[in-house]
Amino acid sequence: MISTRLEHDFLGERAIPESAYYGIQTLRALENFTITGIPIKAEPLFVQALAYVKKAAAMANRDLGVLDPTLAGFIIQACDRVSTGALDDQFLTDMIQGGAGTSVNMNANEVIANVALELMGKPKGQYEFCHPNNHVNCSQSTNDAYPTAFRIALSNKLVGYSQTLGELADAFADKGTEFRNVLKMGRTQLQDAVPMSMGDEFRAFATNLREELLRIADSRGLISEINMGATAIGTRVNAPAGYAELVTEHLRTVTGLDLSLAGDLIEATYDTGAYVQLSGVLKRTAVKLSKICNDLRLLSSGPRCGINEINLPALQPGSSIMPGKVNPVVPEVVNQTAFYVIGADLTVTMAAEAGQLQLNVMEPVISFALFTSISYMTNACRTLREKCVVGITANVQHAESLVRNSIGIVTQLNPVLGYEITAEIAKEALLTGKSVHDITVTERQLVTQARWDEIFTFENLIRPSFMQ
Amino acid sequence: MISTRLEHDFLGERAIPESAYYGIQTLRALENFTITGIPIKAEPLFVQALAYVKKAAAMANRDLGVLDPTLAGFIIQACDRVSTGALDDQFLTDMIQGGAGTSVNMNANEVIANVALELMGKPKGQYEFCHPNNHVNCSQSTNDAYPTAFRIALSNKLVGYSQTLGELADAFADKGTEFRNVLKMGRTQLQDAVPMSMGDEFRAFATNLREELLRIADSRGLISEINMGATAIGTRVNAPAGYAELVTEHLRTVTGLDLSLAGDLIEATYDTGAYVQLSGVLKRTAVKLSKICNDLRLLSSGPRCGINEINLPALQPGSSIMPGKVNPVVPEVVNQTAFYVIGADLTVTMAAEAGQLQLNVMEPVISFALFTSISYMTNACRTLREKCVVGITANVQHAESLVRNSIGIVTQLNPVLGYEITAEIAKEALLTGKSVHDITVTERQLVTQARWDEIFTFENLIRPSFMQ
Amino acid sequence: MISTRLEHDFLGERAIPESAYYGIQTLRALENFTITGIPIKAEPLFVQALAYVKKAAAMANRDLGVLDPTLAGFIIQACDRVSTGALDDQFLTDMIQGGAGTSVNMNANEVIANVALELMGKPKGQYEFCHPNNHVNCSQSTNDAYPTAFRIALSNKLVGYSQTLGELADAFADKGTEFRNVLKMGRTQLQDAVPMSMGDEFRAFATNLREELLRIADSRGLISEINMGATAIGTRVNAPAGYAELVTEHLRTVTGLDLSLAGDLIEATYDTGAYVQLSGVLKRTAVKLSKICNDLRLLSSGPRCGINEINLPALQPGSSIMPGKVNPVVPEVVNQTAFYVIGADLTVTMAAEAGQLQLNVMEPVISFALFTSISYMTNACRTLREKCVVGITANVQHAESLVRNSIGIVTQLNPVLGYEITAEIAKEALLTGKSVHDITVTERQLVTQARWDEIFTFENLIRPSFMQ
Amino acid sequence: MISTRLEHDFLGERAIPESAYYGIQTLRALENFTITGIPIKAEPLFVQALAYVKKAAAMANRDLGVLDPTLAGFIIQACDRVSTGALDDQFLTDMIQGGAGTSVNMNANEVIANVALELMGKPKGQYEFCHPNNHVNCSQSTNDAYPTAFRIALSNKLVGYSQTLGELADAFADKGTEFRNVLKMGRTQLQDAVPMSMGDEFRAFATNLREELLRIADSRGLISEINMGATAIGTRVNAPAGYAELVTEHLRTVTGLDLSLAGDLIEATYDTGAYVQLSGVLKRTAVKLSKICNDLRLLSSGPRCGINEINLPALQPGSSIMPGKVNPVVPEVVNQTAFYVIGADLTVTMAAEAGQLQLNVMEPVISFALFTSISYMTNACRTLREKCVVGITANVQHAESLVRNSIGIVTQLNPVLGYEITAEIAKEALLTGKSVHDITVTERQLVTQARWDEIFTFENLIRPSFMQ
Repeated sequence: MISTRLEHDFLGERAIPESAYYGIQTLRALENFTITGIPIKAEPLFVQALAYVKKAAAMANRDLGVLDPTLAGFIIQACDRVSTGALDDQFLTDMIQGGAGTSVNMNANEVIANVALELMGKPKGQYEFCHPNNHVNCSQSTNDAYPTAFRIALSNKLVGYSQTLGELADAFADKGTEFRNVLKMGRTQLQDAVPMSMGDEFRAFATNLREELLRIADSRGLISEINMGATAIGTRVNAPAGYAELVTEHLRTVTGLDLSLAGDLIEATYDTGAYVQLSGVLKRTAVKLSKICNDLRLLSSGPRCGINEINLPALQPGSSIMPGKVNPVVPEVVNQTAFYVIGADLTVTMAAEAGQLQLNVMEPVISFALFTSISYMTNACRTLREKCVVGITANVQHAESLVRNSIGIVTQLNPVLGYEITAEIAKEALLTGKSVHDITVTERQLVTQARWDEIFTFENLIRPSFMQ
Repeated sequence: MISTRLEHDFLGERAIPESAYYGIQTLRALENFTITGIPIKAEPLFVQALAYVKKAAAMANRDLGVLDPTLAGFIIQACDRVSTGALDDQFLTDMIQGGAGTSVNMNANEVIANVALELMGKPKGQYEFCHPNNHVNCSQSTNDAYPTAFRIALSNKLVGYSQTLGELADAFADKGTEFRNVLKMGRTQLQDAVPMSMGDEFRAFATNLREELLRIADSRGLISEINMGATAIGTRVNAPAGYAELVTEHLRTVTGLDLSLAGDLIEATYDTGAYVQLSGVLKRTAVKLSKICNDLRLLSSGPRCGINEINLPALQPGSSIMPGKVNPVVPEVVNQTAFYVIGADLTVTMAAEAGQLQLNVMEPVISFALFTSISYMTNACRTLREKCVVGITANVQHAESLVRNSIGIVTQLNPVLGYEITAEIAKEALLTGKSVHDITVTERQLVTQARWDEIFTFENLIRPSFMQ
Repeated sequence: MISTRLEHDFLGERAIPESAYYGIQTLRALENFTITGIPIKAEPLFVQALAYVKKAAAMANRDLGVLDPTLAGFIIQACDRVSTGALDDQFLTDMIQGGAGTSVNMNANEVIANVALELMGKPKGQYEFCHPNNHVNCSQSTNDAYPTAFRIALSNKLVGYSQTLGELADAFADKGTEFRNVLKMGRTQLQDAVPMSMGDEFRAFATNLREELLRIADSRGLISEINMGATAIGTRVNAPAGYAELVTEHLRTVTGLDLSLAGDLIEATYDTGAYVQLSGVLKRTAVKLSKICNDLRLLSSGPRCGINEINLPALQPGSSIMPGKVNPVVPEVVNQTAFYVIGADLTVTMAAEAGQLQLNVMEPVISFALFTSISYMTNACRTLREKCVVGITANVQHAESLVRNSIGIVTQLNPVLGYEITAEIAKEALLTGKSVHDITVTERQLVTQARWDEIFTFENLIRPSFMQ
Repeated sequence: MISTRLEHDFLGERAIPESAYYGIQTLRALENFTITGIPIKAEPLFVQALAYVKKAAAMANRDLGVLDPTLAGFIIQACDRVSTGALDDQFLTDMIQGGAGTSVNMNANEVIANVALELMGKPKGQYEFCHPNNHVNCSQSTNDAYPTAFRIALSNKLVGYSQTLGELADAFADKGTEFRNVLKMGRTQLQDAVPMSMGDEFRAFATNLREELLRIADSRGLISEINMGATAIGTRVNAPAGYAELVTEHLRTVTGLDLSLAGDLIEATYDTGAYVQLSGVLKRTAVKLSKICNDLRLLSSGPRCGINEINLPALQPGSSIMPGKVNPVVPEVVNQTAFYVIGADLTVTMAAEAGQLQLNVMEPVISFALFTSISYMTNACRTLREKCVVGITANVQHAESLVRNSIGIVTQLNPVLGYEITAEIAKEALLTGKSVHDITVTERQLVTQARWDEIFTFENLIRPSFMQ
């Protein structure tokens, strides 16, 4: 038989496992919410951020004289223990819950209260000495504590994501340098266009992704605005004068983040705009990654019946039936991750739209969507770099021979011969299979071989300069 | 100066252009709703359906003795005139409006009342002889008349769409027959897989789209359930006994459609499930069309640096700078249409989710989204067939030579030699550039030339039979 | 030190933990795919379905003489063991992978091969006696085995979902009966409309959800079409004559499902239409559930400053700061689940659109999205029924008093007095705060008290009959 | 008979109406693209921006000596005429086209060439004197000219949108001031929470929307980066040295916009990130507007069976059957506009993801989606302000009486009595219907009447200060 203690709330009394640091409200949450099976502890940064918030609140309450300094000290000590991750296994509430985060906030309040009681040498559940609501949650509401902790966790989580994304961009940039002198056909609308450097193609991937780092930084800026001290709906009811400003200051110190207090606490308490913006940034990066992976798959298509300009590292046999087949499995998994993130953005959108009056009660599913999207994107970026990009090689000769045999080089004759004549040359080449050179130099004698050689140097193909 | 007449409603009095058949409530709608600039008359089938609904209602009201037979006769005659399209220019309400369709319903009520008055030899606006609400709208509410008309319009609009989509499928099937003996490489994950018939590839497009015809038929079934007689919220308040059943019967006759009365009128009055389902069907077809157009663009990529197995008809110069370039512009416009339709499906989803209590007030944007999606899809299917599919040609020799030079044919040695040996052959071919034939027959002598010839007949490549 | 065995594939050699039933290709998958951290074993029905597919294939291969009967027997026995769930912990591949399911298929092939070897008394990895590709995967490709197993798993998973959803509908129907004689105000556009029975409102929820059961049945029909025998791309390459039909027949027996062989195997091998349709059905139900939960939250709003017609069961304290507050936490969590499912539908849409040529390589993320959506929806429906619907009570007197004091009852005077006079009464009531009764009977004397009593009986308010 | 002239391109010869300023390539576009029926001229700012781009290009070409100064002068003069809107009716290409904008670019090139010819005194079509490709399009490709014009048009269109949105925010702020001393119940999760000022609620709407102005400004920053001089794929092929920088400088002067040249022209030529970002901003504002309109509809619900704290202006009779009913039609139409914009964002997302290699060919549908979204949002914001917000009135007494009778005021006793006792009071009030005052002061005598009066002053209810 499992040893239990009795706890009560205004709905009644329940037995809690003696070993549990959480209390009756967490127990109710466990019973009420069984949707995803994924508990809050799956996001250690969120647990940590809850502890940060409770610590800063205790400090501010102590300073303002609404919490006994000794008690505040125990709460702060308890928060420090929770923020190390030592109590992560007590954060069991399902990622998606009703109640706008109240269960998560109470889970934190209860765990911290019981850790503080333990530090005082009191048995768990003796809340008269340290009460989850009256003391740990003092001067707070779920409606300010939960979103603040969520924002801190997001901000910290974005640091790792941003770094991994930056490293992926760097890997593309390195390939850009490596392939600088690989001549290849540029393509628009999947049709042969004009020649280019493969290095420029890869450097452009880096450019494309580096822009995202700026957008992530924007997002971190927006989510650094918090509403501590707003309490229930932004009127600051039950928070002492000066508390909002002071707790924000403490929280800046505790977290090391550049947090600021929202100017309009009524608005800040229901607004989910910063999440929508962040989700949009994640989506935009997903869209770009998906496009890049589509390109990698196109460029490595073949090996003999496709474009085959590059080789991706062979990671695993590609087929249970087709021997020797190797597939672009990493770009494929990144594409799929992108589709997940784009779907999750819609979840965030709908949840944001569903806010009503003084609160958006759908914030838990927003946190679920954003946390998983950031995790999956981080994993996808790391996988793409490690398992694919760094090992890409170019089929230099094949890529160049495609250019040399193409009709697309005719564009470089455009300034010399005009659009209409060059269009005729191109048309003839297409219909007859002849080369542009043969039609232009040999048959029609529109330019001399010497002029041809001048126009079609390797350097002028790969990095064209203007000739008329 | 424009000649006007005065009309009033319970909010006051307004001057209406004397020439207008619409009245004061339509005028208010014109002032209140100026979002899209696209009026209801842009959907003539919707105007027609409104007239059908009003006609059937007048017939039922007449039969049940709640409308004077002579007056009913004039209303019916007016409806007949409206249903010919002669009054389309009077249906000016913006496609997106608030009020759950009340403005559209009143627009119809007012136009029909004034046409009826004209038929009686009365001046417009003399509503004591034929009143938009008391007579034309008798036994109806916007909440049953509007969705019923919408459903009738959808059903009729789907007929043309379905036919156009069917013709597109037929065009693909014809190409399937034409290309029956074109051998080509099949590709999975953009990597060379095993050989196949190009005819089978095109026939599969036909199969893929023909399945959609069944889904459209399902949708027409679901939207044929109507709620006439529900009046305001489904309680039948203000409708005479037997009216719901009788008006449905009349409406079946008037429209020639297999309409049925919903079993639960409370539910039917707010439910938008049939629209969500139809939108989902349109989206599914859009997804398929987009995939098919992606394939057409891939298969025609090149002409020299891509796959180039097929040629799409050249419709217009493809570039303002690159002479002779021809682009797959029709598949491209179909892709874009698909993206529009997929976006519109989200609009429908959100509008459906926003229903509250006894009504879904967002039905106008649902009708805007569905009408435009069906129109655009119809146009896209017709364009794709006429401007692209019927003119596609195969590069027969190039397609076959890709197969013959491929490594992918090695799979056909799998049952003979086993997965591991064939995988080795494939790997060697890839690394050395040698042919599978040379490695297998000449170098390793794993099968004789005779056996090779038996396995790799044209017939066995294009339509493989099992050999061990 | 962990004991290992060496395995090889055409990319090289790797050490596998001796205890593992999976082999080298699974190991590679574990290294290559680390996106979600959620392994295939999280869907036991999928593991089971893979075993069913492999069993039926072994039976067909045995019957057609391409697999030694003794060996086939061991494979079948191994499949039986896997299908009990005993080996679930060996299915470790991440839910989202590249390779179109090859890793999952090979995970199954390897586990079954090693279980079969064990049954033969051979050490694991001695694949010459039972080979993952040559024997377990005989006459199969990932491209037919994977989607077939996926479809079987979906079909079985939908059984439980459908039942839970049906029970939820039943619970609403029961409340419909219970509240049959509770009079309440119907509302359209959040404005007071006309009176109704609260029982009808709840029965309509049941009707609304029961329609979904039919749609789920449609979906099960579409996903019961399989492509076994298609092998790599639908040409049946490497499958013996008659195999496709025979394996389908065996699979019908093994699974007890009404499976059928697709008519066009080329198309069936890349088509994801059935998934898009199923995802659309899940989305439609999510939209409806969200609307219903919005209604429950509206109707229970208050307790004193809202509508407050019903009470939801109190499950947990609703606020960390506002004492006594109880929130509609279960409808809230269901709303959020719906938003998740709607987002996942977009993931499926994008993945479906990304199919190319002979395969859709994005099927793993489709399976991840559909499996989680069905699980979450099942959980949400069960939670909504158990924790909310069955305990809902009506505030009978408050609901009726709202009706009696409303202006909305004026509509019932419409057939008697006409639209314009009743509109005037309504307007006066709104401006002055007077009751409709006082204006109509006392002040304006438009109907007698006796006539009033006749029109406004309880029965005529709650279930109006027509009066003129 | 219509008078025509003959024109040719490399696909053949066609008759053009003599009166037309457009030429053969526009004619082909008209035949090829018939999806939406909405021509480019529906966006006059886009036509104007095309003329700006062509003018700046002519200036740069002239300065760099690649275009004869006299000819350049005529082209510049022609551009000036087009930019006035005088030739708008010649821009007939359908909004959605294939070809990545080539038809739109050529439509502009042809119209400008023919206007220039007219200015020279030459007949239309005498392109040897001024050629659409060689002269008007000189040093350009569709792939730089089209997106640049698109970005300029967007930037200019955002000015009007931003102003209209700002005015809407101001209108809410004005109501914030007007309602400053209206006491009302704050609500979270649709449950009574704590009291607040109605003015704060409306000011928060202003705050919420004003944040959007900053995001729009961000978007204008991102779209001000252009790729003129990139030509076909970003290699600057066929553009003279220094052209890209010079044309950008001229374009800054011509447009008055703070345009800058992209640092990586390869990337800039295919990147659609700025459109995705802008679309996300539009979506975010749509989400906020939808939430605000939901609130307005909730707060005005009733009049007698809802919350009824505010009155929206009565704009039109709300029902064809329910006399006197007035509906919140403007918030409803804004909700629907928001759903359209959210759907259009998905269209943009999918189109962006579909970019391939050196170009995103789906840009036309992106432009269609963004142009309509900005138009509709502008219309919605103007409508919401003019037809709704400025006329909102408060039901001051009703709003205050809801607060006074509520249980929610108990929270203000929390710091005095502690969470557990106040929770008990709240529970008793809910069960018995008693007031918080009676339980607290009269029955339980937990605070004196004097203390009660101190805590529950009007000022302390509407703008609480901390009391312990």
